[in-house]
Amino acid sequence: MKSSAPSFLCTAADEVRAAGPLVHCITNYVTVNDCANAVLAVGASPIMSDEPADVADITSVCGGLDLNIGTLNVRSVEGMHAAGARAAELGHPIVLDPVGAGASALRTRTAVELLGTLPVSVVRGNMSEVRALAGASSSTRGVDVGAADAVGEKNLDASVALVRELAAKAGCAIAVTGAIDVVADAERAFVVRNGVALMGKITGSGCMLSATTVAYAVAHVDPLEAAVAAVASMGLAGQVAAGRMGPSDGNGSFRTYLLDALYNQTGAELAAGALVEEVL
Amino acid sequence: MKSSAPSFLCTAADEVRAAGPLVHCITNYVTVNDCANAVLAVGASPIMSDEPADVADITSVCGGLDLNIGTLNVRSVEGMHAAGARAAELGHPIVLDPVGAGASALRTRTAVELLGTLPVSVVRGNMSEVRALAGASSSTRGVDVGAADAVGEKNLDASVALVRELAAKAGCAIAVTGAIDVVADAERAFVVRNGVALMGKITGSGCMLSATTVAYAVAHVDPLEAAVAAVASMGLAGQVAAGRMGPSDGNGSFRTYLLDALYNQTGAELAAGALVEEVL
Amino acid sequence: MKSSAPSFLCTAADEVRAAGPLVHCITNYVTVNDCANAVLAVGASPIMSDEPADVADITSVCGGLDLNIGTLNVRSVEGMHAAGARAAELGHPIVLDPVGAGASALRTRTAVELLGTLPVSVVRGNMSEVRALAGASSSTRGVDVGAADAVGEKNLDASVALVRELAAKAGCAIAVTGAIDVVADAERAFVVRNGVALMGKITGSGCMLSATTVAYAVAHVDPLEAAVAAVASMGLAGQVAAGRMGPSDGNGSFRTYLLDALYNQTGAELAAGALVEEVL
Repeated sequence: MKSSAPSFLCTAADEVRAAGPLVHCITNYVTVNDCANAVLAVGASPIMSDEPADVADITSVCGGLDLNIGTLNVRSVEGMHAAGARAAELGHPIVLDPVGAGASALRTRTAVELLGTLPVSVVRGNMSEVRALAGASSSTRGVDVGAADAVGEKNLDASVALVRELAAKAGCAIAVTGAIDVVADAERAFVVRNGVALMGKITGSGCMLSATTVAYAVAHVDPLEAAVAAVASMGLAGQVAAGRMGPSDGNGSFRTYLLDALYNQTGAELAAGALVEEVL
Repeated sequence: MKSSAPSFLCTAADEVRAAGPLVHCITNYVTVNDCANAVLAVGASPIMSDEPADVADITSVCGGLDLNIGTLNVRSVEGMHAAGARAAELGHPIVLDPVGAGASALRTRTAVELLGTLPVSVVRGNMSEVRALAGASSSTRGVDVGAADAVGEKNLDASVALVRELAAKAGCAIAVTGAIDVVADAERAFVVRNGVALMGKITGSGCMLSATTVAYAVAHVDPLEAAVAAVASMGLAGQVAAGRMGPSDGNGSFRTYLLDALYNQTGAELAAGALVEEVL
Repeated sequence: MKSSAPSFLCTAADEVRAAGPLVHCITNYVTVNDCANAVLAVGASPIMSDEPADVADITSVCGGLDLNIGTLNVRSVEGMHAAGARAAELGHPIVLDPVGAGASALRTRTAVELLGTLPVSVVRGNMSEVRALAGASSSTRGVDVGAADAVGEKNLDASVALVRELAAKAGCAIAVTGAIDVVADAERAFVVRNGVALMGKITGSGCMLSATTVAYAVAHVDPLEAAVAAVASMGLAGQVAAGRMGPSDGNGSFRTYLLDALYNQTGAELAAGALVEEVL
């Protein structure tokens, strides 16, 4: 591994703020407000719409699409397919967040169908979700990664190899986030070590990342690099937020500080603080 | 223009806290939590319900109705019409927030139908949405105002004239919010200059305003004055919140500070801080 | 009444953190984010799903179920029955939050049907909602308790007797929260005095409590004790949060501080701070 942060990090973050892309999110109602504020924090603009009769128009005025299957329902899944079809026609990047894949048959099937039908640019999930999406055995624990699947230093090489393999099979970039993040496509792989444990103590850190990944993928041409930059950006914001925690603070304040840190993060700060290594 | 704040501002704000009206909101799932907390912050009580089989009963126990079409769906639009019909029977003020009108055919059509069918008291939107609602050309950018439509000092006179004209046509008060806010009905017009740019860096500042406008319209008889007071109240809260921002704060903290400022705002403070001019 | 806090408080809180149960929430879209963060704050994990085709699988991987009828719709009510049936098969504790029962026919009927059909462990609501659920006359004010129903020192004995009676009739524990909380089943009754008025100035304090009650009911065998501990836990967090309020803080900051206080609360602190009396 090499240890200097890739030069595209600063570029990608600055491109997002310069372009201010519109991001169409079809996402769950649990964390949707945080997703909207996170998209605004990185310098883009969100618009949410899941009604099948509305989504094609909305996607048409946006630059990219976030498909997050948390709290999916029959109608919103229909909206995801309709929006995805339009985004595909327009060549917009699509990010798929398979929330809870492996935890229910409907979620697994929906995620598999979306990935199989649409030209997804990036899949962003935890290792259990990504394994389930790829048809591998998975130890998912609700919407959290199962202990047997979690990526750590001990199984890092094997995890990187697996993500590479799944990415090659899926034909897109895959960002597996957790204590250590692995982002890969068929050709390149990166490891990101900005994660802090507090990120798992709020709801929505993963959903927010998927939404900001769309902004990065719209503004920056290469989907893999966009995903790496978005992952590092969120991880660094988490570190900054964790550093701000006082003795009375808990996950309520952490959530606020996380958005604040994203909001104030510059491309130069991202490049300086990102703990990103390319796996050669 | 005259520069002293209208005397109804203090009255209206105090009336809201004294009456504590119940506000029925049919609103999007992105900012609904902020809307509820904003309604509580100004001294009223929110209740959310969008199910067609539920809304007539809920509206019946409330004092006014907020119809916000963000994340509309076929079922919730049906709920809006049912709730609106009941509110009309009861003579309750109705505030329409045409989120994203102009950005999709469904949103434009829904907003037009609601305005055409129901005795709306106040329309609250950005200039692109209001233009789209009125059938004028619009440069909307998702749920944000298009650059060509934005109200500034340079096009203020023309903007005021346009809002007056649209209000006369719609037969209600219209509050167009942005860098400068214009609030008018067929007879009177007001300009409000409390806006701060940070308001556009969080999701929901407009939605929150539409919800609190209902509280003002229930507690204060004149819909135009109620809208002016609600607009100034939210703008002043934004100024107070912006003044509280520290170097590490971003849109996460701003959102919290905005609710805090609304919560602590008295009628006297509103009257003292509001930058409201009546256009004669 | 006796004044020392029951010994099960510390035990129950520590059991939640030790077990980290998965809580399936079918809840309203207004306060769902706060519910998720509250569940995380007490050491459990939330997963939200309301789609009838998804809920049985999701409930199967969880330990307990929260049924909250705020913003119910025809589809989500179907999901509640399906999830409840599966939870019943699995012997999972079910907490019912009858938000707005008494305010609409649909809500009252739905709450009554859920209680009549499912083996509910705990009902958590305000006195107006609980009265409506029990078929008694109710002075509900939207989703807030009506003045005539509110529990205070003056009507405390009568309130305790009523809750006991309703609990016996319903065959479960009932937690009526307000200025003073009353928690009872057919055999025992407790009064909790940790409430602060600020809890009513944010949306979702009741919803959050219902969600954390599930976590307590999964981790602690006795549903009544679990409900008492969860009620005291939320009340004490409210006191801690209220004590942290500065002059510029309002309901925005209180919401954050409440989650923070829940997050940092230990079992020992709960036992020391809880104002719980068993009514003998």
